[in-house]
Amino acid sequence: MTGTIKLNKVAIVGGTHGNEFSGIYLLRKWRETPQLIARESLSVDTVFANPKAFEENKRYLDSDMNRQFGTDELCNLELANYEQSRAKAINEQLGPKGAAKTDFIIDLHNTTSNMGPSLILLQTDAFNRQLGAYVVAKMPNAVVVLEDHIPVHEHTFLSSITQQGVIVEIGPQPQSVIRQDVLDWMEEMTGHILDFVDLYNRDALPELPSSFEAYKYQETLKLPENDQGERLGMVHRNVQDADFKVLRHGDPIFTLFDGQEVYWEGDYEAYPHFINEAAYYDNNLAMSLAKRVMIDVN
Amino acid sequence: MTGTIKLNKVAIVGGTHGNEFSGIYLLRKWRETPQLIARESLSVDTVFANPKAFEENKRYLDSDMNRQFGTDELCNLELANYEQSRAKAINEQLGPKGAAKTDFIIDLHNTTSNMGPSLILLQTDAFNRQLGAYVVAKMPNAVVVLEDHIPVHEHTFLSSITQQGVIVEIGPQPQSVIRQDVLDWMEEMTGHILDFVDLYNRDALPELPSSFEAYKYQETLKLPENDQGERLGMVHRNVQDADFKVLRHGDPIFTLFDGQEVYWEGDYEAYPHFINEAAYYDNNLAMSLAKRVMIDVN
Repeated sequence: MTGTIKLNKVAIVGGTHGNEFSGIYLLRKWRETPQLIARESLSVDTVFANPKAFEENKRYLDSDMNRQFGTDELCNLELANYEQSRAKAINEQLGPKGAAKTDFIIDLHNTTSNMGPSLILLQTDAFNRQLGAYVVAKMPNAVVVLEDHIPVHEHTFLSSITQQGVIVEIGPQPQSVIRQDVLDWMEEMTGHILDFVDLYNRDALPELPSSFEAYKYQETLKLPENDQGERLGMVHRNVQDADFKVLRHGDPIFTLFDGQEVYWEGDYEAYPHFINEAAYYDNNLAMSLAKRVMIDVN
Repeated sequence: MTGTIKLNKVAIVGGTHGNEFSGIYLLRKWRETPQLIARESLSVDTVFANPKAFEENKRYLDSDMNRQFGTDELCNLELANYEQSRAKAINEQLGPKGAAKTDFIIDLHNTTSNMGPSLILLQTDAFNRQLGAYVVAKMPNAVVVLEDHIPVHEHTFLSSITQQGVIVEIGPQPQSVIRQDVLDWMEEMTGHILDFVDLYNRDALPELPSSFEAYKYQETLKLPENDQGERLGMVHRNVQDADFKVLRHGDPIFTLFDGQEVYWEGDYEAYPHFINEAAYYDNNLAMSLAKRVMIDVN
């Protein structure tokens, strides 16, 4: 089953958000020492996605670049601000989406949430199931998140340019800071992913565990707000930093500024992540919720 | 000794930096519920120092407001950007510096560093020694930092408008985020400070410990950089989050991006703080160093 399709042309993308520093500094390192990301069956390019946002020490200048890669957005020539234009240029360079000259994208991100080294998969075909199993086997503190609730091509993420691609999401790291632990995790995870793709291409994968744990995206919760969209509360202290810890019906989830507590009323065991991510305050998003699932590899 | 000078007119300032949210949200709360900050012998005003930076979700628009309160800066009418203008307006409202109508300023700040609830004192006269002892006695996880290496009036901080004033500095909190633990610490520490000033005014202070531990500022270290001022390395993982943990000659302090380690070569036992503070990357500042000292209260 493996090896029927080869993924030889890989792009590692950093700085899709200009204030997520780990990927930006790793790209710089790898451009100076390209043998670190070289693998036998791969040609690996690096792409610095949003250099102007980095210069200005911001997530973006005009709009979030990692929401500009939907087919509609890429085709709409009216969408012409900096990130929308840069998205079209990157789609030209790595894609075009739907018929991409690149086989596999690794897009490097940081979060202020306590998510540790997380690997976000956009589908659960055989390739991704094996990839997740391999990364978790090599890096036991890695967490696999599934955002496979829509088909890959319907995503608006940069990594949806190619049919196969992943997001490496490492935290906690404040915006505009470099933490060594976070940088090291990102470098390690990226290395395992490159190893996997190379082994996959060469039909040389080791024996993999038959299943692994993953967190499947369900929904996004907003912070408590009033009719004017002003925040009325914050993430409850029990939930802060508790990414991937179970939340049950009746558990406190928010504290209002007047001291009142709000409880979660969902009907499933939820695993919050992206808890209190700074970049999501624009839209008053408090966290994402996932269900814990076991993925059978074969 | 206490009670000879009364400090009746107090100002609590939040949002001196627009992306340090705890003070901004506490001001909002206290404006709705002013009895929370009311004390018998005090009139307490609240000042939202940089509302435009908050609107734009930035530390500042043009320049760091908390460096605009030197006597020279306040007198220099050529300094006319937003923060420089706003500083003059605040000086008019609370000051003027040198002859201020306000007796005591509490300026509320957040840091991305793991400093916990820190109280920064700008001098160690009898009032401040008692204040530090009181806060530490009431809040055992509080840390007292002394920035008394220059006279108060030579500081360029907002809180230097008045002869007596403190900075409440709470972390770790990413920029543009509200953490409940950090908010709660800030509210608690501010309450103890108000209590102290009120008790001091009324000659009603309880018995205080005879001495307490504090961290006296020595110097600021820069990140490793090349001749062009580009960062060559980052805070060493052993030092990350280790605010107020001792650093000795020969301990690793930075890791260069090529993997090489840099060791601290100072000749004293240093206590780093403001480690990897996001806002200080502008100037490639890595951390401040302090010496641990015991302060005799009487």
